[in-house]
Amino acid sequence: MPPRRRDTGMSLPVNALTLDEIANRFGGTVVGDGATVVSQVGALENAQPGQISFIVQQRYRRMLDQCRASALIVAPGDSDVPYRPLIVHDNPYVLFARLAAHFNPPEAFAAGIHPAATVDPSATVAASAYVDAHASIGPGARVGERSVIGPGTRIERDVQIGEDCRLVANVTVYHDCVLGDRVIVHGGAVIGADGFGLAMDAGAWRRIPQIGRVLLGNDVEVGANTTIDRGALDDTVIEDGVKLDNQIQIGHNCRIGAHTAIAGCVGIAGSTHIGRYCRIGGSAMIGGHLRIVDNVEIGGATAVPKSILKAGTYSGLFPISRHQDWLKNAAHIRHLDALANRVRELESRLAEMERTST
Amino acid sequence: MPPRRRDTGMSLPVNALTLDEIANRFGGTVVGDGATVVSQVGALENAQPGQISFIVQQRYRRMLDQCRASALIVAPGDSDVPYRPLIVHDNPYVLFARLAAHFNPPEAFAAGIHPAATVDPSATVAASAYVDAHASIGPGARVGERSVIGPGTRIERDVQIGEDCRLVANVTVYHDCVLGDRVIVHGGAVIGADGFGLAMDAGAWRRIPQIGRVLLGNDVEVGANTTIDRGALDDTVIEDGVKLDNQIQIGHNCRIGAHTAIAGCVGIAGSTHIGRYCRIGGSAMIGGHLRIVDNVEIGGATAVPKSILKAGTYSGLFPISRHQDWLKNAAHIRHLDALANRVRELESRLAEMERTST
Amino acid sequence: MPPRRRDTGMSLPVNALTLDEIANRFGGTVVGDGATVVSQVGALENAQPGQISFIVQQRYRRMLDQCRASALIVAPGDSDVPYRPLIVHDNPYVLFARLAAHFNPPEAFAAGIHPAATVDPSATVAASAYVDAHASIGPGARVGERSVIGPGTRIERDVQIGEDCRLVANVTVYHDCVLGDRVIVHGGAVIGADGFGLAMDAGAWRRIPQIGRVLLGNDVEVGANTTIDRGALDDTVIEDGVKLDNQIQIGHNCRIGAHTAIAGCVGIAGSTHIGRYCRIGGSAMIGGHLRIVDNVEIGGATAVPKSILKAGTYSGLFPISRHQDWLKNAAHIRHLDALANRVRELESRLAEMERTST
Repeated sequence: MPPRRRDTGMSLPVNALTLDEIANRFGGTVVGDGATVVSQVGALENAQPGQISFIVQQRYRRMLDQCRASALIVAPGDSDVPYRPLIVHDNPYVLFARLAAHFNPPEAFAAGIHPAATVDPSATVAASAYVDAHASIGPGARVGERSVIGPGTRIERDVQIGEDCRLVANVTVYHDCVLGDRVIVHGGAVIGADGFGLAMDAGAWRRIPQIGRVLLGNDVEVGANTTIDRGALDDTVIEDGVKLDNQIQIGHNCRIGAHTAIAGCVGIAGSTHIGRYCRIGGSAMIGGHLRIVDNVEIGGATAVPKSILKAGTYSGLFPISRHQDWLKNAAHIRHLDALANRVRELESRLAEMERTST
Repeated sequence: MPPRRRDTGMSLPVNALTLDEIANRFGGTVVGDGATVVSQVGALENAQPGQISFIVQQRYRRMLDQCRASALIVAPGDSDVPYRPLIVHDNPYVLFARLAAHFNPPEAFAAGIHPAATVDPSATVAASAYVDAHASIGPGARVGERSVIGPGTRIERDVQIGEDCRLVANVTVYHDCVLGDRVIVHGGAVIGADGFGLAMDAGAWRRIPQIGRVLLGNDVEVGANTTIDRGALDDTVIEDGVKLDNQIQIGHNCRIGAHTAIAGCVGIAGSTHIGRYCRIGGSAMIGGHLRIVDNVEIGGATAVPKSILKAGTYSGLFPISRHQDWLKNAAHIRHLDALANRVRELESRLAEMERTST
Repeated sequence: MPPRRRDTGMSLPVNALTLDEIANRFGGTVVGDGATVVSQVGALENAQPGQISFIVQQRYRRMLDQCRASALIVAPGDSDVPYRPLIVHDNPYVLFARLAAHFNPPEAFAAGIHPAATVDPSATVAASAYVDAHASIGPGARVGERSVIGPGTRIERDVQIGEDCRLVANVTVYHDCVLGDRVIVHGGAVIGADGFGLAMDAGAWRRIPQIGRVLLGNDVEVGANTTIDRGALDDTVIEDGVKLDNQIQIGHNCRIGAHTAIAGCVGIAGSTHIGRYCRIGGSAMIGGHLRIVDNVEIGGATAVPKSILKAGTYSGLFPISRHQDWLKNAAHIRHLDALANRVRELESRLAEMERTST
């Protein structure tokens, strides 16, 4: 594989920090040389000098012998690790995340409209926004300050996009949808396509016009090739701070509560309302017209066919096994009801024997 | 969230109708003031004056107190609801769908080729068709009357697109594929990519050229980011009136029968033939080389590893439960065969005891 | 359906071969007239004169009565089939694949940059490469000899693309990613989007910049609308010869071993390493931070929540049944632990009775 072209700290980047500066700015306590300079984050096993890494679990301790990082972030309970310098912080992963953001700010874009972009005269693009090549913006659409409309992206009529958004590339946003501020939409995502609304009319499906919109709150992130359908009559709503991974499908009239995170390949059928601070595992499938309350965690590949009205962690996964074992065991599932009846009958016959034998 | 920009009936739209006009044109019987004018459909709980809503199930009756709709559509058995005016119709949802279509006609497009589109000189675009910005149309392709090729859409060589189609945006149609009339393809869909045909040849996969096509019948709808692979040797065929939701994958050489509806995230492996008027639930997974007859309904998240030769409803879903309960119960699935053997042994030992104790 | 426009052999294509030429060039033994000319491959049931077909399983023998192919490829054990001429070959499917490739070479493209493409002045596009309409190539990117960047494709800054690649259309490749030689990427695929890395910080998700890359080896094929996330700190790596079907999601920091084939709709969560020569069935879901060794086969729709350290075939699929049967049987799964306890209790009570009755 070709080497990485990115500079990994040989010259000192402008946003390098000493450990003392880190502790002052982001919290934590330095153990060892606070004048140590770091300018990038790195994984424990591959970090280079000039980088800072972190450990969050005991089992990573054994990797420290080979570690080349210039510093480590550890939790208070791990401050005895044989490594220096350290920053001791109550939540090493949060400090790591803050430093990662500091060392890797979002790409800067020039303002303006690329000559190969197409912007309808009735659209309003803020002066500090950027519309990249081969993007097209329809009549009446609005793009807020510092937002970036990436190459090949299609913004239909009357869409409203807030400030500091980034639609990376080849995104499609259907008419009348609304994006808040600081929304990120990754490549190939489709927002506001018609929901799947059909009525069987004289032997053929009649499609029902979908006249609701999609509303994305502030700080929402939408993964690559994720799709969010517009509402049938009312709107589909994704509240502030929701994070959606790739290849998720959200049906019409869903509502996803603030700060809920959904992993890749999840499907959510229409009109389901999910609460705040939920976490949905990858490839989970959630049925339509359900209600899921706040703080529910759903395991990967779990199907949810009914509402969940109590916070907690839920799973439903067929266990994997060697194919031959699966064949043998799975066959019994079709006869579980009969097996349960046989056990019940055994119980009653045995009770009868016990009764008569005394 | 910002208010909806769409006019909700304060001035009278050109396609407004009185209830008497509705009954005359679409069927049904008016109860109450037939001169009442409506100009949009609305959901029972959010309808505004000037809108017409509907109830299809008893449980919606309790919402009527707060309902602000100017009229309701009800089934004959519900004509006693305390609400006026009504339209009584044998199938309220169908009348609702017809009115929704009447009040919300498809967007009109100008005819012609956008200056930022690219059309090969050997392609044929009908005079009334529209090719939008940054679309590209390859050699020999044909686009029928009134069809709209949306922004960023790629039509490869020798593709045939019928009349009154709409490819919304960023769609890709590979060479030689054929779309019938009134076909709708949503954002990001890919039609005619190479099927997954491989032969292991001397330690590496050799790809097998996929020389079939995709044929889409009339009135087919293809959801956002759905993919339909071209045939390996023969064609992949989607018959008239099939409705496909978002993020569906259809493998090479599948045939989907007329008027079958498939919900989001379904995967169908190669060479499977599905009948007419089937309904496939979201995230179902259908194996390859199967045959599914007409009028089969498959539940959401159900895996179909073998043919279904009898109409009916089929399911196969691992039940969800609290994670701790799942851990406890799922472990037994790996030992179901042993458990069934133990029950059988108990039965024989108990029978032996019963025999000897008499 | 309209007839296929493609010529099916009425005039003799330039790459037509006699059976003798085939045997000389690709191996195998001719039985019958070695001067027979074929110029295309065909499926057994639909092959036309001038085409060559193949049989690999006994059950296809009964189709031979209707077969119109000019020749058949058969395995040594099938050389007694009542059909002439034949080519007898140790691996009929491999010979078929080689002939399919011979008769259907990849489409040829002109070299150069389409006037409607956008190429940054600091990008390097090889003289024999082709950049099609509405594609855009960012600063510092490199495109190797004979590679084709299809319409609407977005190549971000500093991407490296090897020789003889084809990115079909509307593909997005994020900054700094690296593609080897002979890589094929189908429509709508997204390579290098940010992985799903989040830290909960003061009540909101903080996104963690994803500073790794995606590295695709030589001869990798990526299906339509498949997504491969860039690494968080280190790289996501897809080794040589890996074949990915449509709508696959690969999370950050995964490594997929050489010559592994993955069918459609599979999701692989972050940091999982899969070995060489694995085969993953459609809609399988593989959890994060796992290790799967070489030569593992995973059945369709199977969830993999833990590492697989031994080669072999694995499954975990809830069996499908009539909906009413499923309702009856699935209910017992929630009580399997109780059922197992009841069986254990029966065993101990029965043993006690047997002990006392003797």
